[in-house]
Amino acid sequence: MIIPVILAGGQGTRLWPMSRSARPKQFIDLIGGSSLFQQTLSRVSDKSRYTAPIIVTNAEYRFLVADQAQEQGVTLETILLEPSARNTAAAIAAAAHAAFQQDEEAVLHILPSDHLVTADDDYFHAVDRAQAAARDGYLVTFGINPSWPETGYGYIAVGEGLGNGTHKVARFVEKPVAPEAERMLAEGGFVWNSGMFMLPAKLFLSECEALAPDVHAAAGAAVVLAKRDLDFTRLDTEAFAKSPDISVDYAIFERTDRAAVIPVSFQWSDLGAWDAVWKAQDRDANGNARSGPVDVSNSTNTLVVSDSAHVVVDGLDDVAVIATEDAVLVSRLSAAQNLGAVTKRLRGAEHTKALTETHKTSYRPWGGYASILMSDRFQVKKLFVKPGKKLSLQKHHHRSEHWVVVRGTAEVTIDGKVTMLTENQSIYLPLGCTHRLANPGKIELELIEVQTGSYLGEDDIIRIEDEFGRQ
Amino acid sequence: MIIPVILAGGQGTRLWPMSRSARPKQFIDLIGGSSLFQQTLSRVSDKSRYTAPIIVTNAEYRFLVADQAQEQGVTLETILLEPSARNTAAAIAAAAHAAFQQDEEAVLHILPSDHLVTADDDYFHAVDRAQAAARDGYLVTFGINPSWPETGYGYIAVGEGLGNGTHKVARFVEKPVAPEAERMLAEGGFVWNSGMFMLPAKLFLSECEALAPDVHAAAGAAVVLAKRDLDFTRLDTEAFAKSPDISVDYAIFERTDRAAVIPVSFQWSDLGAWDAVWKAQDRDANGNARSGPVDVSNSTNTLVVSDSAHVVVDGLDDVAVIATEDAVLVSRLSAAQNLGAVTKRLRGAEHTKALTETHKTSYRPWGGYASILMSDRFQVKKLFVKPGKKLSLQKHHHRSEHWVVVRGTAEVTIDGKVTMLTENQSIYLPLGCTHRLANPGKIELELIEVQTGSYLGEDDIIRIEDEFGRQ
Repeated sequence: MIIPVILAGGQGTRLWPMSRSARPKQFIDLIGGSSLFQQTLSRVSDKSRYTAPIIVTNAEYRFLVADQAQEQGVTLETILLEPSARNTAAAIAAAAHAAFQQDEEAVLHILPSDHLVTADDDYFHAVDRAQAAARDGYLVTFGINPSWPETGYGYIAVGEGLGNGTHKVARFVEKPVAPEAERMLAEGGFVWNSGMFMLPAKLFLSECEALAPDVHAAAGAAVVLAKRDLDFTRLDTEAFAKSPDISVDYAIFERTDRAAVIPVSFQWSDLGAWDAVWKAQDRDANGNARSGPVDVSNSTNTLVVSDSAHVVVDGLDDVAVIATEDAVLVSRLSAAQNLGAVTKRLRGAEHTKALTETHKTSYRPWGGYASILMSDRFQVKKLFVKPGKKLSLQKHHHRSEHWVVVRGTAEVTIDGKVTMLTENQSIYLPLGCTHRLANPGKIELELIEVQTGSYLGEDDIIRIEDEFGRQ
Repeated sequence: MIIPVILAGGQGTRLWPMSRSARPKQFIDLIGGSSLFQQTLSRVSDKSRYTAPIIVTNAEYRFLVADQAQEQGVTLETILLEPSARNTAAAIAAAAHAAFQQDEEAVLHILPSDHLVTADDDYFHAVDRAQAAARDGYLVTFGINPSWPETGYGYIAVGEGLGNGTHKVARFVEKPVAPEAERMLAEGGFVWNSGMFMLPAKLFLSECEALAPDVHAAAGAAVVLAKRDLDFTRLDTEAFAKSPDISVDYAIFERTDRAAVIPVSFQWSDLGAWDAVWKAQDRDANGNARSGPVDVSNSTNTLVVSDSAHVVVDGLDDVAVIATEDAVLVSRLSAAQNLGAVTKRLRGAEHTKALTETHKTSYRPWGGYASILMSDRFQVKKLFVKPGKKLSLQKHHHRSEHWVVVRGTAEVTIDGKVTMLTENQSIYLPLGCTHRLANPGKIELELIEVQTGSYLGEDDIIRIEDEFGRQ
């Protein structure tokens, strides 16, 4: 049995404006009808092959991870929360320590949560071969046979055969310039480094101890000292912070003599930037990929995506248009990998910072809300509350609120008095009252909140009690 | 004294998505801080030169015309409503008939309401010369000295001098192909046909009677049989429909021997398409023009306009990006004149038709509303009601409504019972009740309406009484 380890802490800044730091790439339905994280969960759902997965993520994404797993009907037993971002070496080492505690012979399948993979027979055949090679004492990488001279990926030079489709790694090649990528493609014997691995926990930890002892020690201590918090395991902050910020490739793979590679040809993309999303999507004869309410004419090689306004593109070539409710990106598709610099600039400016952080709809463990109209004296929000969930008991100093239930049933407690509201009923919450909203029903509760007051910031909230442990 | 005649019936389809048929180009704040119609009113506000203007528009725009004039503090005495679109010859002939009834010696200054003009000393100097030439017995056109070889305008070949900067028209030249436009610019002696005229009403009518007798007769009968409706004059439908659909250039100017032209050099643009808007705006050193919350980098020759989402444009050349709340256009700027075909296609498709007709915010004589959230079972609207105005007495068969006042004072009548609501108060309107909303206050009333019901279309409205004469 393999223990899947899903890495779900990435930020996906090059897929802005769809991907934002509070709900990045792996948690949005970018392609395929569910989130990439959920698709990753599906790939490890075969109970004849896999145990329950270990998720490594950060505290900010803990409810997203839990909710999206629940939506998929997956029970998560181990969600490791990284107290700081320390790159893949520390994340994988922590997972390996945690797995080793339970089973010294554990084999780990490391899966980034933000890749697009077609899990067909080829894929599972490769997984089985990788497992066999891992049990034979190798740290196995999955290498994708290249289809074009991509400059956005690292490459692996495939070395001598080990049988069963497995090879030793001859060497790793960093992201190449275009002529080098073309040479490798023409020459053959090179594969893309996919970032997916199959590792015996014990071997990985011993190699880590030998080659990156700081990482090994920091991750080990962080696991030993970890604290349980609801369904989450918080790695120890101080211990984890001592790990160098280094990728598993640099720390281990490029230095071990136990690295093996399995060249594979299943459909794979890291969806690293909008050009990769375009390549992964269906396109018309002119190379136009569309998603959402869009209209593309007289154009070639475009990616046009909208989850909001109707987008009309006419007479253009090589353009990405990505429209969300509150931000629209229009850029050269073939230069999509440069978007990191643009989002960095947006993040650095006061008036655009929020656009890189949150979507118009914010998700909370109990459901979420969208601000649908904002003025200086009032704000209109749509709230949605999951069945059985309740918000914190709270009060506001500067605003009163009207709630109109438009779907489901609300249990509203105002200054200790409980009222049940159904669709088409409303209630008033005067300034300063203590109140709590709960959904006692079996379907999602939706309500429209009209706030009025002199200050309408999210920080005017005094939480008196909260079942999710928030202050 | 000159009688200004403002033509305000155009549709402006090539400035979609900002311009839509229910509120086209001339009524939106496209450039300059007020609408082009309002800017046109300002140009004729000098009471030492002009009488009150005659507005020619269609029934759909009558409240827009009245409201925007009121906003400017302009009292309109004559608003002629065209019962059908019959092009400029009939519109000007109707205005000339109406003016002639009042003053047989009237001189008319014909102004399209959707042009951008810098009304500086040069401009008024030209107006004065045009008036003198008109009183000398000429039908005067304003010809703009060309600054580039524009192919989107008609040209006028300037003929022999008549003194005082006025010339006879040698001939009219239709919109030229590029080489011809370049030849005319190089050769000199050609000006752009601006569509602005100075006409003695009597001479225009006699030339019209001689050269386009159908137009003359139809417009004359439509004025004689016109009906007064509130502040509007409805031209007779049957009579007006008999006019041929023909421009004043074809019908009169190209055939009369009384045509004169005054070459002028004041700033003028017909803002006919997005490239003209770009030319009329301030641009940075790379040729980028910006308006609204936008961010343009590594780009040249772009027009980026947003009245809603934050728009980020990176790495592009020769592109127009126009973002509104519910539609975004991305097209080649230099091909902006082709947009007519795109909007025609949108208008022809059921799911995009509404995007060519109305903005997200709809304007009514009493104020207006914006749909801010729509689902199959509920809708949230923001309503705004002008001081002293009231909506129709009405009821709905399929929806109930909650109203929350967020600004101002509301007088709400439900089944005969009157309630006054102030900011932060709410009221419920059960399905089937007769109700009426009024703003008895001195400031604009704003309220949030939450509708719930099985059918939420605008046509579920039974008007029992309406002060604006609507059914």
